[in-house]
Amino acid sequence: MNRDTAIPQSDGSDAFQDYYLEEYAHCYGCGRLNEYGLKIKSYWDGDESICHFLPKEYYSGGMKNILYGGLIASLIDCHGAGTAAAAKAREMKIKIEPGAMPRFVTASLKVDYLAPAPVGVELELRGAVKEIKGRKVTVGVTLSAKKKICAKGELIMVQVRE
Amino acid sequence: MNRDTAIPQSDGSDAFQDYYLEEYAHCYGCGRLNEYGLKIKSYWDGDESICHFLPKEYYSGGMKNILYGGLIASLIDCHGAGTAAAAKAREMKIKIEPGAMPRFVTASLKVDYLAPAPVGVELELRGAVKEIKGRKVTVGVTLSAKKKICAKGELIMVQVRE
Repeated sequence: MNRDTAIPQSDGSDAFQDYYLEEYAHCYGCGRLNEYGLKIKSYWDGDESICHFLPKEYYSGGMKNILYGGLIASLIDCHGAGTAAAAKAREMKIKIEPGAMPRFVTASLKVDYLAPAPVGVELELRGAVKEIKGRKVTVGVTLSAKKKICAKGELIMVQVRE
Repeated sequence: MNRDTAIPQSDGSDAFQDYYLEEYAHCYGCGRLNEYGLKIKSYWDGDESICHFLPKEYYSGGMKNILYGGLIASLIDCHGAGTAAAAKAREMKIKIEPGAMPRFVTASLKVDYLAPAPVGVELELRGAVKEIKGRKVTVGVTLSAKKKICAKGELIMVQVRE
């Protein structure tokens, strides 16, 4: 892990979520301390952020073979939140130690569902920071299955004043 | 249950989701046949739709006492989908039998998170149909805890051609 760059790297080392303060690590979607949760992990991949996730097969939509839209929204939300926090840390050039990641909450989440996503397939989420304006970070996220983009999200994340 | 009105009623009888065709009743959020799912139930309450749901306590956000935003988006999505289907059925004046509910998919979902929602509290979702335009139904949904609106959603739902 390269701490000097203040950026957790996608080299098998720590994910963005591993840097959340223990008190804030209970998220059902991405908290490392939520034993029932999905525990998604996000990393930088160049200028974009990336996350791979294989949902359990019971996360179906109305039909058994189609992925649940609520899970898609959830994954986009958590990956977007991690991306905002990591991007702000990078902008601030702070040295990220475990627990030092700035904390963000979602102000708004918009998801456009472009195509049904299949179940039983590893998903790829990619995040791109659109704007950092003080405590407000706007992030775009795509969710793909088998290299096809199935959903696009846009999030406005707001940094919590600690 | 008053079938003559083509509207499942909030009198302890069938919910919107009980009218989904078996093939489409596997949604993790609202499918009556998804044994792992949340099985939310939506009803008419006058011109609005209503749903009450008590999430398990492990659906926390970053902090243990705050409700998971992904769950909020999921509940809004499922309740909005049910509302769109029931509203279209009402508009079409079709006699709703189990399995006869028109089927809708989410084209877009927007959620504004206004205030943290607590865990361990029964939530109330209320849906209002904003527009029905052919196969497209726009629905607004609020999510409240302890009578305080914590999130507002807007969904564009599209009826599937069977």
